[in-house]
Amino acid sequence: MASVPTGDASLARLLDPASIAIVGASDNPDKIGGRPIHYMRRHGYAGALYPINPQRAEVQGERAWPSLAALPAAPDLAIVAVAGEQAVRAVDDCAALGVAAAIVISAGFSETGEAGRALQDAMTARARAAGMRIVGPNSQGLANFGNGAIASFSTMFLEVEPGDGPVAVISQSGGMCAMVYGLLRQRGIGVRHVHATGNEADVSVAELACATLRDPEVGCVLLYLESLREAGPLAEAAALARARGVPLIVVKSGRSEAGARAAASHTGALANEDRAVDAFFEHHGILRARDPQELVRYAELALRSPLPQGPRVVVVSNSGASCVLASDAAAERGLEIAPLADATQQALAERLPGYATTVNPVDITAALLSNNGLFGQVLPVIGADPAADMFLLDIPVAGRGYDVASFAADAAGFAQAASKPVVVVAWQDNVASAFRARGLPVYADEIQAMDALSALFRLRRLRERDGVIPAPQDAVAVDPAPDAAGGFLSEAASLALLADNGLAVIEHAVCRTADEAVAAWRRIGAPVALKACSAQLPHKSEHGLVALGLNDEAALRAAFAHQAQTLGKLNVRDGAWLVARMQRGLHECALGARVDPVLGPVVMIGSGGKYVEALRDVAVLMPPFDAAQVIEKLRGLRIGTLLQGVRGDPPADVEALARQAVALGDYALAAGPRLASVDINPVMVGAVGQGAVAVDALVELHPASQAATREAA
Amino acid sequence: MASVPTGDASLARLLDPASIAIVGASDNPDKIGGRPIHYMRRHGYAGALYPINPQRAEVQGERAWPSLAALPAAPDLAIVAVAGEQAVRAVDDCAALGVAAAIVISAGFSETGEAGRALQDAMTARARAAGMRIVGPNSQGLANFGNGAIASFSTMFLEVEPGDGPVAVISQSGGMCAMVYGLLRQRGIGVRHVHATGNEADVSVAELACATLRDPEVGCVLLYLESLREAGPLAEAAALARARGVPLIVVKSGRSEAGARAAASHTGALANEDRAVDAFFEHHGILRARDPQELVRYAELALRSPLPQGPRVVVVSNSGASCVLASDAAAERGLEIAPLADATQQALAERLPGYATTVNPVDITAALLSNNGLFGQVLPVIGADPAADMFLLDIPVAGRGYDVASFAADAAGFAQAASKPVVVVAWQDNVASAFRARGLPVYADEIQAMDALSALFRLRRLRERDGVIPAPQDAVAVDPAPDAAGGFLSEAASLALLADNGLAVIEHAVCRTADEAVAAWRRIGAPVALKACSAQLPHKSEHGLVALGLNDEAALRAAFAHQAQTLGKLNVRDGAWLVARMQRGLHECALGARVDPVLGPVVMIGSGGKYVEALRDVAVLMPPFDAAQVIEKLRGLRIGTLLQGVRGDPPADVEALARQAVALGDYALAAGPRLASVDINPVMVGAVGQGAVAVDALVELHPASQAATREAA
Repeated sequence: MASVPTGDASLARLLDPASIAIVGASDNPDKIGGRPIHYMRRHGYAGALYPINPQRAEVQGERAWPSLAALPAAPDLAIVAVAGEQAVRAVDDCAALGVAAAIVISAGFSETGEAGRALQDAMTARARAAGMRIVGPNSQGLANFGNGAIASFSTMFLEVEPGDGPVAVISQSGGMCAMVYGLLRQRGIGVRHVHATGNEADVSVAELACATLRDPEVGCVLLYLESLREAGPLAEAAALARARGVPLIVVKSGRSEAGARAAASHTGALANEDRAVDAFFEHHGILRARDPQELVRYAELALRSPLPQGPRVVVVSNSGASCVLASDAAAERGLEIAPLADATQQALAERLPGYATTVNPVDITAALLSNNGLFGQVLPVIGADPAADMFLLDIPVAGRGYDVASFAADAAGFAQAASKPVVVVAWQDNVASAFRARGLPVYADEIQAMDALSALFRLRRLRERDGVIPAPQDAVAVDPAPDAAGGFLSEAASLALLADNGLAVIEHAVCRTADEAVAAWRRIGAPVALKACSAQLPHKSEHGLVALGLNDEAALRAAFAHQAQTLGKLNVRDGAWLVARMQRGLHECALGARVDPVLGPVVMIGSGGKYVEALRDVAVLMPPFDAAQVIEKLRGLRIGTLLQGVRGDPPADVEALARQAVALGDYALAAGPRLASVDINPVMVGAVGQGAVAVDALVELHPASQAATREAA
Repeated sequence: MASVPTGDASLARLLDPASIAIVGASDNPDKIGGRPIHYMRRHGYAGALYPINPQRAEVQGERAWPSLAALPAAPDLAIVAVAGEQAVRAVDDCAALGVAAAIVISAGFSETGEAGRALQDAMTARARAAGMRIVGPNSQGLANFGNGAIASFSTMFLEVEPGDGPVAVISQSGGMCAMVYGLLRQRGIGVRHVHATGNEADVSVAELACATLRDPEVGCVLLYLESLREAGPLAEAAALARARGVPLIVVKSGRSEAGARAAASHTGALANEDRAVDAFFEHHGILRARDPQELVRYAELALRSPLPQGPRVVVVSNSGASCVLASDAAAERGLEIAPLADATQQALAERLPGYATTVNPVDITAALLSNNGLFGQVLPVIGADPAADMFLLDIPVAGRGYDVASFAADAAGFAQAASKPVVVVAWQDNVASAFRARGLPVYADEIQAMDALSALFRLRRLRERDGVIPAPQDAVAVDPAPDAAGGFLSEAASLALLADNGLAVIEHAVCRTADEAVAAWRRIGAPVALKACSAQLPHKSEHGLVALGLNDEAALRAAFAHQAQTLGKLNVRDGAWLVARMQRGLHECALGARVDPVLGPVVMIGSGGKYVEALRDVAVLMPPFDAAQVIEKLRGLRIGTLLQGVRGDPPADVEALARQAVALGDYALAAGPRLASVDINPVMVGAVGQGAVAVDALVELHPASQAATREAA
């Protein structure tokens, strides 16, 4: 599967074909070969339809053709709905005829095992050689309700009435495609594109995302993915989405080990490291959802609301208990229930009965029952408050005596006027539907609502970062160590490489003899560490090859002699010694970089020391990033709390630590495929102004030859 | 509000009154004074109804009475539905007449501020003095659908048709009471008791929980609480629930600071420390839910399913993507997607097409479409597998061609035969309702389903612990330090107190002179710490009064002289010195105890050292508990991972650490109200067999006089 040039014409024709052939056309609209014809007639497809069926003169009222060869012209698109070898033959015939793209609905390919995969690969290779694109095989098909080109056999279009609109849904799984479509329509949201890629022998979800983003009517793109096999097309889709201001929201399942195992057995998906996926999404401004239901809840809000200016939510309810539940849900998601201004509270007091609360959350109480206009009177007062970025209207109980229709009208009018996000929590069908009919997003509970508001705020934060995301071609890989062989570098070579690339490293000297080591100690003029160092021994402390806090000649010579003996026993011939200043600092942090085979380099930052893996107090970023982004990530870590200065400690030099991370990210990006990993532990961080210094480092490179192969892959 | 004797007869009459008076009875069934009469007539209340209305001879077809005094006999229950001073007068009249209990629906009491609270307190005191109980004021009322005593004006009984059944819902909030009732009925679950306590001047949610638990038809009790003002009645309800095997599931909102603030403004609720609430619930076998929706999802499963034997879930779906989503959701909740036995896989392979998966999760694929019997064939095979504790059937897509009714019948038959929990995930209304009609719990997504299954497994674990929960009267408080004044004890006194109570403490001596300190060091025969110690200076390290690692006489004397000087400057007169062995160990842990004013003592255990507060790596338990419970709690902590032995460390003596925690818990329980807090940091934990030793400790006591007051409160 290779990258596709931007604006690939064959993909445009796939979504807007002038003519469509259906190989295996059926007169029965409930058969797989009959349903697309039924849908296209029903949804007004205006292009030429060519049912191929040698047994019939007519199919569902359309003239039928005995074979592809008999057609008056090569169609833009062919739907292949015949089984087994017939399907392969039909794909080959399409390619020979000059069809632009084929949707292969037929199953029996890679999903059945190795033989099926070989069959699929060969078929795809022949098609691509002839210039034809393939969707599938084992695909539910593509559906475009903008032009009626419903090349899909999904039953969901019968279950839930279609309605054109701004959403594109694209999925590796046909089931999730149909489900997300259904959930959106259940909420009254218009859906234009509903595409499933099945086995993805050729056309991928990300490529279709790019293609739908070129449809100017598309205002929200939703993807379901089980694996990311290449990063480029998704990064391109994200860039297109950002350029157009269109939210791109993605479910990437297989987050856990159990999930990744299930994904591998479902689609043969590669497992992606989930924290790297998060970092990639964040870097490219993609909003991630956990599951299809959350995807739809986020999409509804993103479509119907402006982005919030800040994280502060004002809650209004006719139940004090809902105010409490909403406050808990907000706090747990990092949203704020901010105090209202005095003037707002005064204005509320004039409108509400004495026992209602005029603080945020605002409990207007069951007084709503005796004055159904309270919502309409209260909302504009709060809307003017400077502390209100978003609103949640929570109506847990409304029965006889409540004029729900007028609440909904008041709320919709308010949302319009305020130009701020307004969401509703309601579980009673009649209440929810009254608000939904007015175009307001409705959620079943406070947790769902606060999740969605928090996602909307995240979307805004992602937008603010647009400027810092470079276009993919900006990153030029240069070999960071052309002379080095592959494998682990020695600690000395690792430190030198990092120093060359802008990281602050510990003051040190590389020595071969005890005399050199003593001279180095005198030069440093402070206690030193002595470490025997060899690329053969990446984990030297396990061999007792580290001596700390040496500050007199005799001790230094004794340690040197002991380590030389150990190296001899271990048969290490390239041994050298590192004499390094003992670095004091307030905190031990760790920095690392890995190059994900699919997603590229990622940088880890977190708590350092011996237990770095066990503590898992680490954040992951995708370079390039700036110091401010690092500092924001540190805030979410336990080490981040300590770095601020607790228990009488001074605040640590977080800026210096962040600069180290930025330098490492830039290096990892420039290093390209030669780099395997970098581990720096500890990075000693001093008080503000005292810097952050890499004390111990280990760099692993791929051999130059292997890296070249990896780049080409 | 005082504790109530077990089986309080007035509460029994509250739920099953032989006669009910309605003060402020209205002929209009939509008025507050009219609705209970309407409900009771509609739901067949068989007792005597006495509408009180001086203006009418008849109310809604019932004979009306001009006043309470005119009644032929004192009713068991009076509903007070008149406003302001009339309400207070009516309550007084009821008390004078010998009414057993009054439900005061009228508002205008403590929820309006201080004056209202005084009015409420005085009214309640008069009623209690006369032997009458009060529900409310500001209560929506009580409803018992088992006998038609619907002393409630909730509109929800008009919105959602009542149906008697095994559930009792009791809430401080009327809104949440109505909402939980509505959500249960929406799922077709029968509800008998629907009680709201409003301002809780007298009768509390926990007392009503006890009363409903004496109704043999009640099989599940659901509570909504914003504050726990006393622990006894809830502990009693929990004990009754455990004795009957009835699940007690509770929402306690106000978990966050923002939520607690909102609760305080809603009901004047005290903020309870949320981790102490968790520990209390766990101790008493109460299952906690986050919100009313989750409460209902848990209740449905608890009512309809047996408890699972283990945490292993088998997933069966017609979509591979749902298998992936379900696996992620399971893993994130600590449930296992366990491998199936070879024999099971073989049997599945015989029944499923080649491209389906025979591992867990089982993807039966769209082959279900061509063989609607697949569910029925596959389920019994899996049901027999030893790795299957619970089942999730996931049907994200079912439209034309799917015989959903037969799937539901197959699944229900299987659930019956397997006697294991079976839940369904479906979002399409027709699919969900088909399964629901067969009595299977249906959830909207995999996360909700796995949350519920995980809660059911938690419920089983809570049940297993029944034996270790003592009855409340077993805990007898003894004064742990009758001679000590209140306030902080010195470190020496703190260590002595803990040693007396069975904790292993550091080898140490208390000295007054340098000579004594030197003698103590010689006796210990190892490096020591010298700490000046005074009850006046609980945090001595901040004053430079700790010297570590002293191992020669000169150094010891120098440190002593320096500390004596510092004490002099600080004007400390009662100074003494602690000479303590320098204790080595693998890990620094922390132990602590607090006495929550409502919930009683709780014990904290976690990572120790300087940053114990900032790291927040701590678990909370309510004593008494055993070592096994401590060890289980440690598993969830980061320090727990380190204690197992990572990076070449030997495993630590977790048993010894757990014994220290158990001893501290037993002490805290015995100490009773005199104890304020214990902080032990660090507890040095050595390798297995080397023990765990309290190195530094600080005990705070309440003065004996104050403690006596606290006990009486």
